[in-house]
Amino acid sequence: MVENLQSLIPFFQPRSIALIGVSTRTGLQAFNILEQVLAGGYRGRIYPVNPKGGTLLGLQVYRTVSEIPETPDLAVISTPRTAVKEVIQECTARGIKAIIVITQGFADADSWGKQTQQELQEIVWNAGARLVGPNTIGVVNLYENLNTSFIGFLRKEADTAMICQSGIFLLGAADFTGGIGLGVDIGNAADVGFSESLTFLGQEPRVRVINLHMEGIKDGHRFMEVARAVTRTKPVLCLKTGRSEAGARAASSHSGSLAGEDHVFTAAFKQCGVIRVRDVEEMLYLNKTFLTYPSMPGQRIAVVTISGGAGIMAIDACSACGLEVARFSEKTREKLAAVFPDWMEVNNPLDIWPAGMTRGYLEILELSLDTILEDPGVDAALVISPAYLPPEEDPRLDISRTINQAASRHPEKPLALWIFGNYRHELAARMEKENRVVVYPSPEKAMASLATLYRYLHEIKGRAPGHPAVFTDFHEERIDSLLAVAMREGQATINEAALEILQAAGIPVLPSRVAHSTGDAVRIASSQGYPVVMKIVSPQISHKSDVGGVKVNLKDDREVAAAYNEMMEVVSARVPQATIKGVLIQPYRPGGVEVLLGCKRDPSFGPVLVFGLGGIYTELFRDVSFAIAPVDREKALDMIRETKAYRLLRGFRGQPPANIDALVECLLRLGQLVTRWPEIVEMDINPLLVDPQGAVAVDARITLHTSNL
Amino acid sequence: MVENLQSLIPFFQPRSIALIGVSTRTGLQAFNILEQVLAGGYRGRIYPVNPKGGTLLGLQVYRTVSEIPETPDLAVISTPRTAVKEVIQECTARGIKAIIVITQGFADADSWGKQTQQELQEIVWNAGARLVGPNTIGVVNLYENLNTSFIGFLRKEADTAMICQSGIFLLGAADFTGGIGLGVDIGNAADVGFSESLTFLGQEPRVRVINLHMEGIKDGHRFMEVARAVTRTKPVLCLKTGRSEAGARAASSHSGSLAGEDHVFTAAFKQCGVIRVRDVEEMLYLNKTFLTYPSMPGQRIAVVTISGGAGIMAIDACSACGLEVARFSEKTREKLAAVFPDWMEVNNPLDIWPAGMTRGYLEILELSLDTILEDPGVDAALVISPAYLPPEEDPRLDISRTINQAASRHPEKPLALWIFGNYRHELAARMEKENRVVVYPSPEKAMASLATLYRYLHEIKGRAPGHPAVFTDFHEERIDSLLAVAMREGQATINEAALEILQAAGIPVLPSRVAHSTGDAVRIASSQGYPVVMKIVSPQISHKSDVGGVKVNLKDDREVAAAYNEMMEVVSARVPQATIKGVLIQPYRPGGVEVLLGCKRDPSFGPVLVFGLGGIYTELFRDVSFAIAPVDREKALDMIRETKAYRLLRGFRGQPPANIDALVECLLRLGQLVTRWPEIVEMDINPLLVDPQGAVAVDARITLHTSNL
Repeated sequence: MVENLQSLIPFFQPRSIALIGVSTRTGLQAFNILEQVLAGGYRGRIYPVNPKGGTLLGLQVYRTVSEIPETPDLAVISTPRTAVKEVIQECTARGIKAIIVITQGFADADSWGKQTQQELQEIVWNAGARLVGPNTIGVVNLYENLNTSFIGFLRKEADTAMICQSGIFLLGAADFTGGIGLGVDIGNAADVGFSESLTFLGQEPRVRVINLHMEGIKDGHRFMEVARAVTRTKPVLCLKTGRSEAGARAASSHSGSLAGEDHVFTAAFKQCGVIRVRDVEEMLYLNKTFLTYPSMPGQRIAVVTISGGAGIMAIDACSACGLEVARFSEKTREKLAAVFPDWMEVNNPLDIWPAGMTRGYLEILELSLDTILEDPGVDAALVISPAYLPPEEDPRLDISRTINQAASRHPEKPLALWIFGNYRHELAARMEKENRVVVYPSPEKAMASLATLYRYLHEIKGRAPGHPAVFTDFHEERIDSLLAVAMREGQATINEAALEILQAAGIPVLPSRVAHSTGDAVRIASSQGYPVVMKIVSPQISHKSDVGGVKVNLKDDREVAAAYNEMMEVVSARVPQATIKGVLIQPYRPGGVEVLLGCKRDPSFGPVLVFGLGGIYTELFRDVSFAIAPVDREKALDMIRETKAYRLLRGFRGQPPANIDALVECLLRLGQLVTRWPEIVEMDINPLLVDPQGAVAVDARITLHTSNL
Repeated sequence: MVENLQSLIPFFQPRSIALIGVSTRTGLQAFNILEQVLAGGYRGRIYPVNPKGGTLLGLQVYRTVSEIPETPDLAVISTPRTAVKEVIQECTARGIKAIIVITQGFADADSWGKQTQQELQEIVWNAGARLVGPNTIGVVNLYENLNTSFIGFLRKEADTAMICQSGIFLLGAADFTGGIGLGVDIGNAADVGFSESLTFLGQEPRVRVINLHMEGIKDGHRFMEVARAVTRTKPVLCLKTGRSEAGARAASSHSGSLAGEDHVFTAAFKQCGVIRVRDVEEMLYLNKTFLTYPSMPGQRIAVVTISGGAGIMAIDACSACGLEVARFSEKTREKLAAVFPDWMEVNNPLDIWPAGMTRGYLEILELSLDTILEDPGVDAALVISPAYLPPEEDPRLDISRTINQAASRHPEKPLALWIFGNYRHELAARMEKENRVVVYPSPEKAMASLATLYRYLHEIKGRAPGHPAVFTDFHEERIDSLLAVAMREGQATINEAALEILQAAGIPVLPSRVAHSTGDAVRIASSQGYPVVMKIVSPQISHKSDVGGVKVNLKDDREVAAAYNEMMEVVSARVPQATIKGVLIQPYRPGGVEVLLGCKRDPSFGPVLVFGLGGIYTELFRDVSFAIAPVDREKALDMIRETKAYRLLRGFRGQPPANIDALVECLLRLGQLVTRWPEIVEMDINPLLVDPQGAVAVDARITLHTSNL
């Protein structure tokens, strides 16, 4: 599939539409697409198609696609699933280049459906046409009065776009995203998918926020590339579902999506600047936030509140999402102290009720807001106010005018609101009319939204694209031949040779040789130099230390000989079924931090790098970070910083700091290795020892793609 | 202060009220309490008091309290703060036994306010009267038309109660808790506080859910005792604010509350069955949930959805909060398969749209609900349905009748809803009229609420009270004398003698003696038996292993002598400023899990036990659990289970399981020790070694209350 954005234009801006399989009934129970297209006010030419012919809602109905007097820009098919293939053939024969298949029952259903979807895809591709769906409600373009749904909904225009795998996000857009401009339900995504749609909507100037509802994705790498570009200019939010195992199973039967492990999506989104949202409420408030506030200079938040108790909640929420509680300037304090009761300290949160009771609530609110928003130490403000009664019954608490005026005087600093009380929706509606402020349903949502706004504006928007380091000193032939040997011998797992492969990729490894006798052990140890470490080698034993298969800090020939003999005895006794292949001998390098570097192949995103603390704590605490390979230097550092291991590496409790640069280089090289040699499906370097001198791989294991064997 | 529930009755059910300091102005800007009391429909006798006299709103105004023709049940004072003390004296002189002080500016303000609050408290106590406030809006009893607020609000009755430290929770109750029956704003809680109010409301038969908004608490132990009893019969929810450090500072200036560490509150609430809520939205939906659903037989949830995509979100949410995805019975599958399209598998989540399109949405919904709710493998159901248009414009999607009928046929299983689309509020209002179902704003809120409902009904409600174990074999005199020695010597910290104190409390300790010379070391080691461990003793060195101050597994006299000399040399070189007091020698006991047991004194709750993984990982991962001391066996086990250390103790990666019973006993004994000897303000046993044989304290430290020195 070659990406061709031109080919998507007919979906969103068709001059003419064929509606194939349109019902001849109308009204509520008929699910008649024609009726909805007309209700939406579509201004292009419409050609209903139904074998019965006749007229419908004032339009001529054509019996077949070939009868239509022109080649329509877009065909929307909603016939029973058994007829879809034939209709598509008619469409492509008629030269139609954009086709939407509404009908369900393909990759989302049984094996007939899965097979047939593949056939539809081929027909469309061979004809140079494009397909949205199947299993979709199609597209929405409220800017130009187009929607292809078969069910009525509130058409509320907003400068947002939506790419989803479930029609509810287009039909419910007024609720989920506060309105919509352009949207496409890619359904089973047989042809048009996330990457292309995102590129297309990213280039649409009217769209200011793009939302994704994703159940799975095929071309993860391509998606990341597109998203990296789009998120530089506009925020992209993603509600990825199928997070849980049960949810992923349900997703695969809903849209035929292949959902890999959820934490891989989290890592991928983070890398390409996509903001992952947890639920539909977060999605709604982030859309409002991005559409309302153009800037936010810093993270220092002021809270102006009618209630001290509510102010405390806001401060808690502020701290919880990493924002800072602003400190008011001397000037601000003095100005406010002049109108506040003597006994009250002027502080953030600012409780304006005591002053408001005597001097008028709206007057004090106005003065407070202007004073605070002029304070250079404040970057945004949250106002907390009640709506206990309908605004018209209690005009004293109707702050909408005061708030909008304050917001218009300080457009560079977000002025957010939390309104509580039974009439908050009424007051919020008044307040939000001018699109200067957002009213949030809780201080937690307000603060979380502002934190995300800040992060987008300062960390994602406009950032320079990163470039994975490319090392040219890999011994490629050596790696090729070591992998070839393993494959020739039918090995799914490479153990001892794994360190050699790493070495060929420029990752430092600890010298290591396997001894097969006591004499051997002593010879190897003394040639490496004392002290040494000894580890049992057996395909049946993966946790060596648990069975007495590890001895450290052996200082001379005598200790090595004794350790060899003891290990043979103890391990055979504890794991009688194990085949012992010898004892690995390495120099003993005490101190340093043991970390784990690994890689796993994901069905959507390919090789995924893993970093974490080594040893038994990897498993116990799952303190690991992930990134899609390859990575650049900054991302590699991020991976390290995300884990608790970072604290150890920086020098925990007086230890000297480890050489993090050397560790970063290992991550970069590992990323290049697993990207260049896709036959490596899994890899573990555990431990990689990082100390002040550098990083060195002590033990490693590689798993090969079995179909390569 | 003796608890006397009778004394609270006049606050909630006064036959007569004096309103002292009532404004002579009326209308919106006047904040006139009399006006609100009248608007609320209060049926008792009202005596406004204002030095100006005259009449107000048709009532005679008395110049002083003494002029009132009877002794009112309740006085509500809203004079300026400087007048409050004198007015209270007049009230108590007049024999008034219940007083509310609305006025702000006491412990919430400056030093004058803090001092004066103490004086008010004393006046009231000496007169045998009771005080609510100061800094409060007083009480609400919507059952009997009473409220003492000075601001209008929607009076929406519901069988909930609220005890708060901020008036917004009474005024905004329609929004925060979906309505209210009884409520009290304890404000600065100079006299009446959480514990008494909770006991009182716990005994009120009309109240079915009790809510707390807490900024801090004084009598933590008493509160836990009360809450333990009340939560056995009705759910108690608590929004504890001041979670963050900045929030706690703000709380202390808002209501003069002393907020200890937040995780201590979390632990305390858990121990006494109080459900901690994170925000006001969670509070609202839990109130609705508890008021609506009387039972929930198990945790297996069915999802019936108009959209497969939405069903996946619900399944994710279900898994995320520990509920189970129900598996439908054969019977259910067959019954539904008969009306579903052939290509569709009948599964949970159940997407009813394809069947609904052809057979009628409401009909299929009804059939699906009845079938599923009759399935013995389903304990509750979530229905997902849209409201794209106003319900009257799209009656096909107005499911309110169908839902309420299904709910009434299956009252034992919660039927919950998530409705989306711009008109969800309208449809929800229709649906919730009959109080049979709750409409949630997201699947996440629905599932989280059901999970809490299940947990309350099956784990908190009606549970038998636990009893901390009481050991009678403590060597009390020995402990007394060891503590006395330390205090006499002015020691704030007990190091070496700490193990002796533990031993006297029946906690096994590893034999240990301090050597002061090489010869000493060899003598002690050989008398303890080899192998041994040696550790440097120095008040300046707390992380001994970091400076070379620990040697393990020393097998004979020669190794001990060498280790002693080396340690002296290395430690002095690394920490030249340290005073070395000798080297501690203990038997070497390899294997086992090193854990930390500790105790810290909290200003609200007294001694708090801490359990976690020992060694450097305690600090790195903060994988610790807390409980208010003393604890019973079950709670001690819970503390262990809450941490990752539990996996190690159960036998991680093939290790034999450690003796958890022995560890539990150590926790119980530690709880008794720190409760019985309050001069111990802090204590650490780190590590306590737990292996299959038992648990043994290896190292410990005790900090004494400095005022005892």
